[in-house]
Amino acid sequence: MANRIPVGILGATGMVGQRYISHLADHPWFELAYVAASPRSAGKPYAEAVENRWLIGPDVPAAATRLTVSDANDAKAAAGKCAFVFSALEMDKALLQALEESYAAAGIPVVSNASAHRWTPDVPVLIPEINPGHLAIIEAQRRKRGWGKGFIVAKPNCSIQSYMMPLFALTQAGFPAKRMIVTTLQAVTGAGYPGVPSFDITDNVVPYIGGEEEKTEKEALKILGSVEGGAIRNAPAPLIAAHCNRVPVIDGHVACVSLEFDAAEGAKPSLAQIESVWTRFRALPQELRLPSAPDAPIVVRHEPNRPQPRRDRETGKGMTVVVGRLRECPVFDIRFVGLSHNTKRGAALGGVLNAELLKAQGFFDRL
Amino acid sequence: MANRIPVGILGATGMVGQRYISHLADHPWFELAYVAASPRSAGKPYAEAVENRWLIGPDVPAAATRLTVSDANDAKAAAGKCAFVFSALEMDKALLQALEESYAAAGIPVVSNASAHRWTPDVPVLIPEINPGHLAIIEAQRRKRGWGKGFIVAKPNCSIQSYMMPLFALTQAGFPAKRMIVTTLQAVTGAGYPGVPSFDITDNVVPYIGGEEEKTEKEALKILGSVEGGAIRNAPAPLIAAHCNRVPVIDGHVACVSLEFDAAEGAKPSLAQIESVWTRFRALPQELRLPSAPDAPIVVRHEPNRPQPRRDRETGKGMTVVVGRLRECPVFDIRFVGLSHNTKRGAALGGVLNAELLKAQGFFDRL
Amino acid sequence: MANRIPVGILGATGMVGQRYISHLADHPWFELAYVAASPRSAGKPYAEAVENRWLIGPDVPAAATRLTVSDANDAKAAAGKCAFVFSALEMDKALLQALEESYAAAGIPVVSNASAHRWTPDVPVLIPEINPGHLAIIEAQRRKRGWGKGFIVAKPNCSIQSYMMPLFALTQAGFPAKRMIVTTLQAVTGAGYPGVPSFDITDNVVPYIGGEEEKTEKEALKILGSVEGGAIRNAPAPLIAAHCNRVPVIDGHVACVSLEFDAAEGAKPSLAQIESVWTRFRALPQELRLPSAPDAPIVVRHEPNRPQPRRDRETGKGMTVVVGRLRECPVFDIRFVGLSHNTKRGAALGGVLNAELLKAQGFFDRL
Amino acid sequence: MANRIPVGILGATGMVGQRYISHLADHPWFELAYVAASPRSAGKPYAEAVENRWLIGPDVPAAATRLTVSDANDAKAAAGKCAFVFSALEMDKALLQALEESYAAAGIPVVSNASAHRWTPDVPVLIPEINPGHLAIIEAQRRKRGWGKGFIVAKPNCSIQSYMMPLFALTQAGFPAKRMIVTTLQAVTGAGYPGVPSFDITDNVVPYIGGEEEKTEKEALKILGSVEGGAIRNAPAPLIAAHCNRVPVIDGHVACVSLEFDAAEGAKPSLAQIESVWTRFRALPQELRLPSAPDAPIVVRHEPNRPQPRRDRETGKGMTVVVGRLRECPVFDIRFVGLSHNTKRGAALGGVLNAELLKAQGFFDRL
Repeated sequence: MANRIPVGILGATGMVGQRYISHLADHPWFELAYVAASPRSAGKPYAEAVENRWLIGPDVPAAATRLTVSDANDAKAAAGKCAFVFSALEMDKALLQALEESYAAAGIPVVSNASAHRWTPDVPVLIPEINPGHLAIIEAQRRKRGWGKGFIVAKPNCSIQSYMMPLFALTQAGFPAKRMIVTTLQAVTGAGYPGVPSFDITDNVVPYIGGEEEKTEKEALKILGSVEGGAIRNAPAPLIAAHCNRVPVIDGHVACVSLEFDAAEGAKPSLAQIESVWTRFRALPQELRLPSAPDAPIVVRHEPNRPQPRRDRETGKGMTVVVGRLRECPVFDIRFVGLSHNTKRGAALGGVLNAELLKAQGFFDRL
Repeated sequence: MANRIPVGILGATGMVGQRYISHLADHPWFELAYVAASPRSAGKPYAEAVENRWLIGPDVPAAATRLTVSDANDAKAAAGKCAFVFSALEMDKALLQALEESYAAAGIPVVSNASAHRWTPDVPVLIPEINPGHLAIIEAQRRKRGWGKGFIVAKPNCSIQSYMMPLFALTQAGFPAKRMIVTTLQAVTGAGYPGVPSFDITDNVVPYIGGEEEKTEKEALKILGSVEGGAIRNAPAPLIAAHCNRVPVIDGHVACVSLEFDAAEGAKPSLAQIESVWTRFRALPQELRLPSAPDAPIVVRHEPNRPQPRRDRETGKGMTVVVGRLRECPVFDIRFVGLSHNTKRGAALGGVLNAELLKAQGFFDRL
Repeated sequence: MANRIPVGILGATGMVGQRYISHLADHPWFELAYVAASPRSAGKPYAEAVENRWLIGPDVPAAATRLTVSDANDAKAAAGKCAFVFSALEMDKALLQALEESYAAAGIPVVSNASAHRWTPDVPVLIPEINPGHLAIIEAQRRKRGWGKGFIVAKPNCSIQSYMMPLFALTQAGFPAKRMIVTTLQAVTGAGYPGVPSFDITDNVVPYIGGEEEKTEKEALKILGSVEGGAIRNAPAPLIAAHCNRVPVIDGHVACVSLEFDAAEGAKPSLAQIESVWTRFRALPQELRLPSAPDAPIVVRHEPNRPQPRRDRETGKGMTVVVGRLRECPVFDIRFVGLSHNTKRGAALGGVLNAELLKAQGFFDRL
Repeated sequence: MANRIPVGILGATGMVGQRYISHLADHPWFELAYVAASPRSAGKPYAEAVENRWLIGPDVPAAATRLTVSDANDAKAAAGKCAFVFSALEMDKALLQALEESYAAAGIPVVSNASAHRWTPDVPVLIPEINPGHLAIIEAQRRKRGWGKGFIVAKPNCSIQSYMMPLFALTQAGFPAKRMIVTTLQAVTGAGYPGVPSFDITDNVVPYIGGEEEKTEKEALKILGSVEGGAIRNAPAPLIAAHCNRVPVIDGHVACVSLEFDAAEGAKPSLAQIESVWTRFRALPQELRLPSAPDAPIVVRHEPNRPQPRRDRETGKGMTVVVGRLRECPVFDIRFVGLSHNTKRGAALGGVLNAELLKAQGFFDRL
């Protein structure tokens, strides 16, 4: 683990920041070198800043305890201390946009977990197995904004991960979807910490998550889009309707999907063809053997009652999308259930995979 | 409460049977007079038969403790002891069909909670607010089978209750649905007792309930159908696709519905029109002031995050369907969330309402 | 319900305040007339102040929706509008002490749910079945502080309710306890709202509740104490050790108790004697037929696995303490399990019962 | 992993049997070679026998899928196929005693997870860190019963693990306990599968587990006992009173302990001394570096609200007992909270550790 790249975490004391710290504890390429948070925590040793607020596993990893927390508002303080930062900040959208930009302007690439820049036209929303080609826009992003080494890459919302991979694999195989109706059953960790009060979710379901349905319906189109003239242009299809629910589950988002293929694009696949497409699906992260990439991005299960969050979420160390119950749909063409680990594939570990792809593709070479 | 009608319960020691006993404890029209169960319990005082197995509230109602359990296989034993029976038996379908028929043949009407006879063409599947007209088939049923006073009426599955009432209200108002995609989040009591193991549902969701999706897709069509020539003929629409999930909730089934209206039938309603239709919906049980009928069969909520099972399931004493989140659907026409109390409206109390309608309509008069 | 006494609620928008509003909706003696909260809510119609934050049942009771929220910091604003107030405020102890005193000084009796004044020597900590005699100190309290009509009465912590009633019944019967070791399993509503994050309690137990063990060990001694010279003097026994745990339950605190009798006080009771003492226990609220008093303050169950929170908490409309598993203890003398509804007996409804006793005893007559 | 010892599992299709299979999947010393279950499963490939009933993680380990299930009632069928068996059978006590004896008589040592032989005087109840010396009785056991290579070793109940290790470490350090009152909060997996119905434990606690309190009070005394004349003689102390509760937790038993030291044995330890004793505690499994032994048998936490099941149960791969909240007890001397992973340390992995000790001590050498 010699010559690891020093990395920083913005929002290091929050739940997502803590997860980044956990995932980096033994990372072969990246070394935790810098932690930043709100001014309230700044100046404290990290272990003190999270005292009685450490949420991930029993103990704060040793690599973090010895660091001093910096003020996340001061981008320049990070310069020279880390090659790039993971952004896990939670704040007002406009403020966060400006803050992430200040890091990029200071020459520090930002691998963001936040939604602030997801709809900025020259910021890619990256799922490494799906749209690594979108990284081509980074050059335009730097040029347009006058950034040297810095840039910003975003991650999509956790709610779409459980169906994006199956959807893309089918699209790539020549079976694009025209319309989808998706109902999600989402885990409480999706709301961060303290997040959902136990009073609201014990013996209960909440059929609403603020802003989540809009993200679920629209982000897929950007990810499936194309880079054109310095901006990412959304794909025109599929048309998606989402119903997002909160359920009493710790980790693991489930999506019940009914999907209609685009008949204009040719013959519809059989269920056997679909399963074959999903099972064989491999992509760039697998080819590059990125450390956090699962062997198989999609695993298909055949039991009638799977996937289930508690039993299947750790498949592929939490980075594999598990699909089951593939069957015909009386209204559309097919139905299936997708499962994705919302705090691994859907948040911090997905962010780490993004950074691994950026590293492997040479985007940190200027540093 | 003088001159109450004596009633019996088949399967009185099971969870649904216990619920019937609870609901009948203070019923103004019906008096618990007969309890029957498997031969294993037969001959025991009811309180002893359910000792340490009483599941509904703290104590066995006084009206039941003094009764002796009869053998449910012996229909003749019930003759003269009760005017009709609620069937809450769980057994092989063919055996249960024959057993319910033996009661009808013995002159004892059967108000059934079971699925055994739901697809028998001359047995109505009754929701009193929706298809009271289907009771007209009882005469044909009796004639064809040579039954005098006896007959069989069934109840639909609990999973459809949360959307049938809103669907029917719209149909009746001239806005029939063409297609629907429904995802249900169903409570554990839907599986009876012992039902779902806690190991399977703690920190988990099970995206499958055996046989439930077929029932959810098809029973609506019989209920919306018409009586023709001694049989109930299914309605041709809507086409329904169902995804049924089990969630860690005690009582209350939630349905997330996307619905497409039948454009051939005329103009599509606005959201305001739909809400008006639902809010004003009243039907025969309300008109007849049946004891278990709620004032409003449908209540519409306007909070962004309602209905929720734990907070809304007792609306209208568990007999009202609570609808919320009415909004446009990007794929179909509208979306909404429906909630129904699965063990009240969806099971025993719904069965009691069926019996109340039969009583009010004179179907027990021959007795 | 003519001539009901007008009452106010301080902290009316919080969870406990909302519960008071629910319990007063149909109260035969008290009429909700005044609601006060923090300055942020002041001036708003109550329904608006709790919009999307109403937590108790489906809807805000009609009696509350039409009221305007006042500033709880202004005691004089309440004068003339209500005969007394329920205090359900949550704030710094010293501030709350002063605030409750300002109401008393303004001539408005305070029936408090808060812990602020529980250790003030001349403030009674009232459980109407146990220490109604402590109300005698109100006269001294008024005199000492120069209050005319005003006074302050407190309620004990919710964690002690599940064993105080059985303990007192035995003490009164001549079987005082010398030592007790108590382990509580407490519901999440004990922490208010938002209270316990779902992340902390899903598939989990938290073996700690800040400050709870101290309250559990000490408040019993004041309640069992005696009024001497203008102060309440603690009882010298029993010695109590408490282990307080938070468990994933909505309502209902369970206590597992091992109890040693004071041999110096005479013969130890048999299990049959103890059960008889508990079953026959009646007190002043039952004698006075106070509206919120349960018929039986203690109910003894004989099933091996009861009491259970979800099944037994509503016994006596949530005001009865349910005791079970009475058996010998290999280390002390006896063991048992007690259950009390923490938000009814242990909070708002217990507060209402306190006010009912005060009314019945003439403490509001000066008004 | 050459030359691994072939092992068998009795009751291989049940939940505990499945856990043994999982733990043996990559074991350095033992190789899964034989699976046996009830006659109903006998003759089937293992994967088929557990089809749709595999409960531990996503997939059946490869080592098991290729085995054919044998009839567990036929001990001779196992001869020559495995060097010893893990017994994870659930059946009538007398039958199970005879069955385990038939394996021993057939020359096959039995490492049992069951309670059948725990009170057989010449069968050790083994916790390798505590009473490895009890294995000395195996020679007497073989001689008395005329067994050659066979013998039986049992494991204690899962409920005592969370306090036995701390209790023993103190005893060994010269601070034996005189009396203890223990309240356990036990996970649902302790009841096997299907085990606790979700209806019983959702939003609920069950203050009773059949037979558990007796085991919790008595097994400690045998484990702390001594081998005398071919039998294990119980230790005379401590006197234990147990309250056992079931809580909605998947894995991890919590014990709230109040403990009184035996003053006759000398000075009582300070809290600092106790913590030092626990933290430094190491035993034979650590010395022998047994594969499943944790580095530290006891870990002490200092946060006010730990240990918690979901956060701490995997400490030491589920084999470490985590202790927290060490503090003085107003009634006895000290109080603390212990946590043990009931299905790892408390069941199958604890059984594997037992077998590792037997192997390391040469008890399988005759084979």
